[in-house]
Amino acid sequence: MDKLQIVKIGGTVLENEVSRRNFLSVFASLKQPKILIHGGGKSATALAEKMSVPVQMKAGRRITDTAMLEIALMTYGGKLNKTITAELQAMKTNAIGLSGADGNAVQAVKRPVSEIDYGWVGDVVQVNTQLFQHLCALDLVPVCCSLTHDRQGQLLNTNADTMASEIAIALSEVFEVQLIYCFEKQGVLLDIDDSSSLISELTASDFKSLQATGQIADGMIPKLTNCFHALEKGVDDIRIGPVAVLTENIPHTKIRL
Amino acid sequence: MDKLQIVKIGGTVLENEVSRRNFLSVFASLKQPKILIHGGGKSATALAEKMSVPVQMKAGRRITDTAMLEIALMTYGGKLNKTITAELQAMKTNAIGLSGADGNAVQAVKRPVSEIDYGWVGDVVQVNTQLFQHLCALDLVPVCCSLTHDRQGQLLNTNADTMASEIAIALSEVFEVQLIYCFEKQGVLLDIDDSSSLISELTASDFKSLQATGQIADGMIPKLTNCFHALEKGVDDIRIGPVAVLTENIPHTKIRL
Repeated sequence: MDKLQIVKIGGTVLENEVSRRNFLSVFASLKQPKILIHGGGKSATALAEKMSVPVQMKAGRRITDTAMLEIALMTYGGKLNKTITAELQAMKTNAIGLSGADGNAVQAVKRPVSEIDYGWVGDVVQVNTQLFQHLCALDLVPVCCSLTHDRQGQLLNTNADTMASEIAIALSEVFEVQLIYCFEKQGVLLDIDDSSSLISELTASDFKSLQATGQIADGMIPKLTNCFHALEKGVDDIRIGPVAVLTENIPHTKIRL
Repeated sequence: MDKLQIVKIGGTVLENEVSRRNFLSVFASLKQPKILIHGGGKSATALAEKMSVPVQMKAGRRITDTAMLEIALMTYGGKLNKTITAELQAMKTNAIGLSGADGNAVQAVKRPVSEIDYGWVGDVVQVNTQLFQHLCALDLVPVCCSLTHDRQGQLLNTNADTMASEIAIALSEVFEVQLIYCFEKQGVLLDIDDSSSLISELTASDFKSLQATGQIADGMIPKLTNCFHALEKGVDDIRIGPVAVLTENIPHTKIRL
């Protein structure tokens, strides 16, 4: 099987011009087939404020109403995705920006309404493995923003970490996949303010205990849940760490079963 | 040579939900390989007003400053392009949205500053014929918004009519190309308020005379200039007309040398 690197880049790295370009130059230097996944929640929030679109929250979770979906299409579907693509092109990487609707790359279903109606949020149901294979065979580098569609004409907002893990799971049937979550930190930290508290290897049972004691909390929980799900579903190698982990042997968190 | 239809759709048709869907269902019904080109100036102007971004004009022409380019990326690069793509997917057309940066589809150069500095406006220098061939061979339907890039990381705003004619010229080397400019009118009219004044065939010398007498004016001049340029450069068949011209034998304007 050919190797494939799937890199999810976090918002804090992406949305600052200097750190974005630094990341993209590292990503561009990777030699093997690769895919980039990004969201853009911070840009979306900033644009919503500028346009006086209220950010709706229910039970601590953001709701994607029609106005917020439009903002997502404009920010991560448009400005960020095209900016990243053009910047990678300048670095001699033949990037091609995709939402889940493009080439039917990632199909989703609107999250069913239970206690909370999340609005236009999509849960991934199918990844178009063949499309990604074809694009990689053409030496194109897919740059996927975290938007999906339901194949009935509706675009849907999807968590970028989940988008990355679902694409990785699907492509692990035809590639040897390494999935790397890059962000501004060293990896998973026991104490978020102390970089020396890095967990260099994390197993599913460690995760359970640390979650029980509250040492792993907040946004790290869904991220790690995605990681363990992807590992169980056959993704070969999953890492969480800073941008430099892509090219250097530096400390980071490796996810183990 | 295989046949290829390249359709440029006008803003008035596109930006009204009912007429857009009607157009897309006609476009989706076309059986042979096809490409859709769109702009989105009206959406951009509407968003600029909403965001209090001043629309700058010089000598009657719109200037694309940095704020306006960002709005173009968000509206036609993001919202419109993804909406069209998702709607075509629902019509079983495997659309893939592209800006000129995606797969290096259309490379441009920033228009040199002479008397007027148009800002971030691109003049097309190269179309990636191979990319379009590969995508068509995969039964993908490119949906191109009128954005290009300079391959040095800069995105550029480009006239959608020009984008269509330049893509048609490049692809006429490998396909038998029919280029159709669809808009809300019957075609080129001698009297813009009288649909019975339709010119059913227009030659380059007719165009010159009608331009001299002022009977063809305003936005129709650059559109027709693009048409005759494309015809001279080898595009096989060029038509201007309403959406129905795509599937029915109805009155329209055919461009002749």
